[in-house]
Amino acid sequence: MHQEGAVRNGMGSNAANVSFASLASFKDKAGMKGQRSTLQRWRFACGNMSYRVKLLTGCVVVLLALYCTSRAASIIGWDDQYPEVRSGSPRHRYTVLINTWKRYELLKKTVAHYSSCSNVDAVNVIWSEPQPPTKELHSKLTEVTERNQVEVRFNINKVDELNNRFKPIAGIRTDAVFSVDDDLVIPCPTMDLAFSVWLSAPRSMVGFVPRMHWPKQSKHGREEYTYGGWWSVWWTGTYSMILTKASFLHKDYLDLYTNTMPSSILNFVKHERNCEDIAMSFLVANVTNASPLWVKGEVHEIGSTGISSLSGHTQHRTDCMNYFVEIFGHMPLVSTRVKATDASEIWFW
Amino acid sequence: MHQEGAVRNGMGSNAANVSFASLASFKDKAGMKGQRSTLQRWRFACGNMSYRVKLLTGCVVVLLALYCTSRAASIIGWDDQYPEVRSGSPRHRYTVLINTWKRYELLKKTVAHYSSCSNVDAVNVIWSEPQPPTKELHSKLTEVTERNQVEVRFNINKVDELNNRFKPIAGIRTDAVFSVDDDLVIPCPTMDLAFSVWLSAPRSMVGFVPRMHWPKQSKHGREEYTYGGWWSVWWTGTYSMILTKASFLHKDYLDLYTNTMPSSILNFVKHERNCEDIAMSFLVANVTNASPLWVKGEVHEIGSTGISSLSGHTQHRTDCMNYFVEIFGHMPLVSTRVKATDASEIWFW
Repeated sequence: MHQEGAVRNGMGSNAANVSFASLASFKDKAGMKGQRSTLQRWRFACGNMSYRVKLLTGCVVVLLALYCTSRAASIIGWDDQYPEVRSGSPRHRYTVLINTWKRYELLKKTVAHYSSCSNVDAVNVIWSEPQPPTKELHSKLTEVTERNQVEVRFNINKVDELNNRFKPIAGIRTDAVFSVDDDLVIPCPTMDLAFSVWLSAPRSMVGFVPRMHWPKQSKHGREEYTYGGWWSVWWTGTYSMILTKASFLHKDYLDLYTNTMPSSILNFVKHERNCEDIAMSFLVANVTNASPLWVKGEVHEIGSTGISSLSGHTQHRTDCMNYFVEIFGHMPLVSTRVKATDASEIWFW
Repeated sequence: MHQEGAVRNGMGSNAANVSFASLASFKDKAGMKGQRSTLQRWRFACGNMSYRVKLLTGCVVVLLALYCTSRAASIIGWDDQYPEVRSGSPRHRYTVLINTWKRYELLKKTVAHYSSCSNVDAVNVIWSEPQPPTKELHSKLTEVTERNQVEVRFNINKVDELNNRFKPIAGIRTDAVFSVDDDLVIPCPTMDLAFSVWLSAPRSMVGFVPRMHWPKQSKHGREEYTYGGWWSVWWTGTYSMILTKASFLHKDYLDLYTNTMPSSILNFVKHERNCEDIAMSFLVANVTNASPLWVKGEVHEIGSTGISSLSGHTQHRTDCMNYFVEIFGHMPLVSTRVKATDASEIWFW
């Protein structure tokens, strides 16, 4: 274990020694006499080099040292590429659920992207339009996913309703589902990291977009809350929800949402056309009695901004939350400050 | 939401404006004539100040601005002190299990420390000596824990054996157990963070000391592994075990370890006086089919170094691991790179 450290440090200093030696030899070249050792001969050769050749040699030596250092881990048996997630069995793969609505160009891009991630088992498109997908769209999506040997399926709903998002899916092979909007692209390695967290916490929501509930002074003698957007989460580091626009969750929650959620909440979501994600967060927190988990990672928005940019959005979400608290009879959400990151990017223990 | 950002930015710029105004007014003081506005009068007053008074005023304004900025979150309803973990119910508390052996001064310190953490339900001392604890030690420990209204209990074992560490404990009220060595002190807020992770991943091991198994080329046609210490984990960010010297785990695993672990492994641990933590990691990974979770946090070693500093330690651990793989029939450990950190300490989204 400690030898490995020595190897690593040794490489750095060897590189430096070689580099200094070539400089020193230049000064000595005038005094070369008598029998020459290999080192002297080498120094002499270096001394006869032009500055440019020396510079080039120096660069090559430095690059070689850098390469060796970067390869040190795998040379001594620490394989950086050691699989983080076991692939193969459905237990170690996940199904992507893309919620879409009349944005076919975006859909093509996101389906192509997610089907390229190695742990994806299938891509399901949640369709909520009176007209079924055109043959052209169907064949285009099949074409991009077949390339990655991933099946794409449509879940057809004729009525546009936000609760469609969480309808149970027949034939789903994995326990894990990644729920995502049609305009969000998350890089595959980031997906792997989050999936790895989810495997260790399979009853929790694990994802990339955290939100918070802030308790406020009640006017009516009952508990009331304010919805906290990304500003408040960024400032305090505290959150209690992970939005389903980019979140892993257990497939069982689709059943629970559709079949056990109070109908008043399902109706509220249907008529307000908002807050299905808050409803899911309430449901999961109520089951786990614990907080969700936020994973650090880039989320690329490839579409125009959605409803969150509309005025009154925060008040609307606050109203949803307080209505759900009333129906649940208490606030189930649990807050936390945990952020899951990639350990290989953190240098300090 | 966006208003809050404006409030925060506004505070910073106001402070700057005031500071610049007081400097500017100094240059203007010679030209004061005619009717004076409030601003002019204020500027005049500033102009008549000595440099020292100006410096002091400037400092006060800057400190006031800093204070307001730091309080901004709670002023607008984002409470930094919002409890991360719900206390009260046993579900949201944990039991500390301290493994000790003839280091009474260390034991007093660690028992005093852990009983001071607000989510601790009870402290259990795992005693493995022929003589029971003295009355003096007993009363000393009771004294420090009573101050924190936490019960301290001894789990007496007359035979010194490493498997004692994981004997089921009668009367334990919490699902979560924090297993720790008698010479390790982890700050209470760090414990809270890790406990919050455990609540979301209650079947996983969650803790502070990660280790790795590295696959190596087999000589005998069977899978073989090398034990990876902290150097390899630090270098690659990859790990597959969390040592029980500082780890949360579900109390059910104590039953499973004692009553379902192959007796050959229990005997191996007993005779080799090592690797009980690797055995527990194998057991948990075999149940969850997932990796444990590493939490970033300071771990203070207050005793002398343990067996890990002895020569041959890594080879010994490697031998344990390969023996366990043979008995399990496969390698159950799953590697990951996830590191759980405190989001309030990370500025970049």
